[in-house]
Amino acid sequence: MDTGTSVPSPTRAPSGASAGSALSRASSEPLAQQLARRFAERIAQRLILPGTRLPSVRECARHHGVSPYTVVAAYDQLLAQGLLEARKQRGFFVRELAQPARRPVPAASSAPPAALASRPVDATALIRGMFQADARSAPGLGTLPADWLDLPMLQSAMRKVLTQSEGPDQLAQHYGEPGGDARLREALARRLADLGVAAAPEQLVTTVGATHALDLITRSLLQPGDAVLVDDPGWAIEYARLSQAGMRLLPVPRAADGPDLAVMQSLIEQHRPRMYVTVSVLHNPTGNSLTLAQAHQILRLAEAADLTIVEDDTYAFMAPNHAPRLSALDGLRRTVYVSGFSKIMTPAWRVGYLAASADRVQKLTDLKLLSTLTTSPLTERAVALCLEQGQLRRHAERVLGRLDAARQRVVRLCHEAGCRFVTPPQGLFGWIDVGLDTERLAQRLLDAGWLTAPGLLFSATRQAGSLMRINFATSQDARFWALLQRLRDGG
Amino acid sequence: MDTGTSVPSPTRAPSGASAGSALSRASSEPLAQQLARRFAERIAQRLILPGTRLPSVRECARHHGVSPYTVVAAYDQLLAQGLLEARKQRGFFVRELAQPARRPVPAASSAPPAALASRPVDATALIRGMFQADARSAPGLGTLPADWLDLPMLQSAMRKVLTQSEGPDQLAQHYGEPGGDARLREALARRLADLGVAAAPEQLVTTVGATHALDLITRSLLQPGDAVLVDDPGWAIEYARLSQAGMRLLPVPRAADGPDLAVMQSLIEQHRPRMYVTVSVLHNPTGNSLTLAQAHQILRLAEAADLTIVEDDTYAFMAPNHAPRLSALDGLRRTVYVSGFSKIMTPAWRVGYLAASADRVQKLTDLKLLSTLTTSPLTERAVALCLEQGQLRRHAERVLGRLDAARQRVVRLCHEAGCRFVTPPQGLFGWIDVGLDTERLAQRLLDAGWLTAPGLLFSATRQAGSLMRINFATSQDARFWALLQRLRDGG
Repeated sequence: MDTGTSVPSPTRAPSGASAGSALSRASSEPLAQQLARRFAERIAQRLILPGTRLPSVRECARHHGVSPYTVVAAYDQLLAQGLLEARKQRGFFVRELAQPARRPVPAASSAPPAALASRPVDATALIRGMFQADARSAPGLGTLPADWLDLPMLQSAMRKVLTQSEGPDQLAQHYGEPGGDARLREALARRLADLGVAAAPEQLVTTVGATHALDLITRSLLQPGDAVLVDDPGWAIEYARLSQAGMRLLPVPRAADGPDLAVMQSLIEQHRPRMYVTVSVLHNPTGNSLTLAQAHQILRLAEAADLTIVEDDTYAFMAPNHAPRLSALDGLRRTVYVSGFSKIMTPAWRVGYLAASADRVQKLTDLKLLSTLTTSPLTERAVALCLEQGQLRRHAERVLGRLDAARQRVVRLCHEAGCRFVTPPQGLFGWIDVGLDTERLAQRLLDAGWLTAPGLLFSATRQAGSLMRINFATSQDARFWALLQRLRDGG
Repeated sequence: MDTGTSVPSPTRAPSGASAGSALSRASSEPLAQQLARRFAERIAQRLILPGTRLPSVRECARHHGVSPYTVVAAYDQLLAQGLLEARKQRGFFVRELAQPARRPVPAASSAPPAALASRPVDATALIRGMFQADARSAPGLGTLPADWLDLPMLQSAMRKVLTQSEGPDQLAQHYGEPGGDARLREALARRLADLGVAAAPEQLVTTVGATHALDLITRSLLQPGDAVLVDDPGWAIEYARLSQAGMRLLPVPRAADGPDLAVMQSLIEQHRPRMYVTVSVLHNPTGNSLTLAQAHQILRLAEAADLTIVEDDTYAFMAPNHAPRLSALDGLRRTVYVSGFSKIMTPAWRVGYLAASADRVQKLTDLKLLSTLTTSPLTERAVALCLEQGQLRRHAERVLGRLDAARQRVVRLCHEAGCRFVTPPQGLFGWIDVGLDTERLAQRLLDAGWLTAPGLLFSATRQAGSLMRINFATSQDARFWALLQRLRDGG
């Protein structure tokens, strides 16, 4: 991939403390990142020794034909990784390391994994790592691995949108409608009808992924200080969003038999919450789906307490259409439905949506206007094409078949490694008990190159415990389970 | 455009109260919208008379081969337009209208313009209308008209991104980095350097248009109740965003000679604001740009009062690179820089960004994670390609040449119509005094088919007055100015 512009090779370096092989402007890896990685590799290989002074920013920039900003950024990364130290007025020096055999910055990704390796496990950093991880070594990944997605479907849909844009539509040149692409909303209304959720296109608002929908709902329907019921375990980003917005979290335990309705009832009586945010179908991380009876019971509780229910159906395409949705029972009176396409289609297009009652939609659309003006009509129309032509449905069927096979294999490997499933394995994620503190375990696994999702990412009270979420699609490597078993056995 | 599925023609209608010509699923116009428009047209043409009962939802749905939701949505639109009334237990009836000659719903756009025509002028509705208006009749448009954009450049860049995604990069299948596409950030750092703003790629965060950047800044750096200095006149969406987030607005008058620094000083002393949000270069709507001396003086005031300055440089590509930016003087210590590509490239891609000091960037990136997780790496990479290859710069040069010619023509037309420029005409917008209350004027112009931007959209205190913003690119039609003159003369 080293085409065109390249900078002098290290053999011509004026000092031994060079960054090694040539940088490439054609690479997708930023120059600063390339530079930092080359230095890190040479430090790890002891080609640059501890105590060595690195070239000045100006010298290094001239030598590599890059801007001083790039060098400063590269040195900053190395500082963050603990490989360098800055000495006032003197420059940057390679640190004396307690553990000299550090993991070099991985080539294919950006800063976070390196930062992860050098710090205690931190939820935000782990979550960021998940967005960039190499699926071959990320049992903690939150999405399908890239090679499970249907790239030809994505590209063909986007090409069609580009071609159609040449016509009178000219999607490529307009903001798009405040509520979102009209054709996508028509297609989504039909999709929701298949799930039993009656919603006119005018009741739908498209968003930048399901995350944006959840954010608009929080801001539009709650006030700082409001109490909100959440599933526990649940997803750290949802906890973080609600906390950041000043809400009080009321965790409702969720296990193999669903949410603990007695606890929910008592929390309602004690704290008068305004909202319950839940993943009703294929809950993350437990994989649990509500039964029809539970859904009915939850709606009765919500009715009595005048609660709004936010139903996050992010994993909709991985569950059968007949799985009961709260929004289907309730008819979007006190429910707001949220879903998206990152988990089944691609996270890169950032297309999600919400469905709500007409009066709420008006308020939510106004807030969308203040938060992002509109969303991209191009990616939305591309999703519409995949939905309209049945391609997405067929892709989802293929994924489910493949996921079933992966799940069978992983369940076997997991049991062989002496771990157990806390909830029956279903959908994309398994929720397992490994019998060890998963916070420390996650660090040791990361040191060995495996990115996992320890329990603390899913605990409303930030308790790690011995639970861990695994992704069935990315946990099929027997070596991961062998290592886990060794660590369990005190190895 | 009527291909494939169509529904029975009106000649086969069981009743006279039909929606007229066939609906088309191939059209970009939603079915409900089509249906509403057909009904509206037939009501306007008195083919369906006042007092007539419309077919039941079920009957209409069967007749047109659409879902009942579509019919409900269409009837809702007609209700909102005041064309129908609902009588309990009896159905929908065509209303007796005081003014029978209503404007039918325009064919090419969605609901808002119709809603506009039937209500008193409302800021949000006008703003929405601007996103959908036909540039031939929208002197109030906030962007370049679609046919001024470089569609081949946009399509070629997006096609390149799709092709490159087939390689190891696979942009099409990943969330993208939390801070945004690395190559775009490299290109933006070089672009900012051309403006004199020193920012490393790590100091940049990409966003869903500049709007998202401004929203993240408000949420990250302010607390509800904080006082914020704003330019007055300024942009209604910014006022609305700050108000929605609970801030107190402190309007600083801005005129031909820039912001009133004496007023600013006194507001600072009285209210101890935390922030000043300003468009320093080609301010919307006045077109005013800060002088170097004013920029320096504002930074001194900000320094003394420990103010953060948010510099919204949305019109960056329409101003010379040497126009003084506050962020260039200040080095992003107390400034946060915001810009985007909707005004010069296309609003459809929704790409914007911010630049800030390293500690602020961390906080802003975390909030971006909570608000949208990431932004689309596809559209960001496409912008990067246009920047890297100089295409965007060349396009901007062509636009500026064309805009200069348009401005000359409009200045002449404006003077001939007896209006005057409040500030020297520059950039995309003119800020003019028409000598009439622009709120009522806007309604009369809208009735005649011209969407304008009356003063109240830009007044922090919601005072309309006789001022109005015009877009030089979309105000070149002499008929608009002739009508304006007639209305001024009491016609």
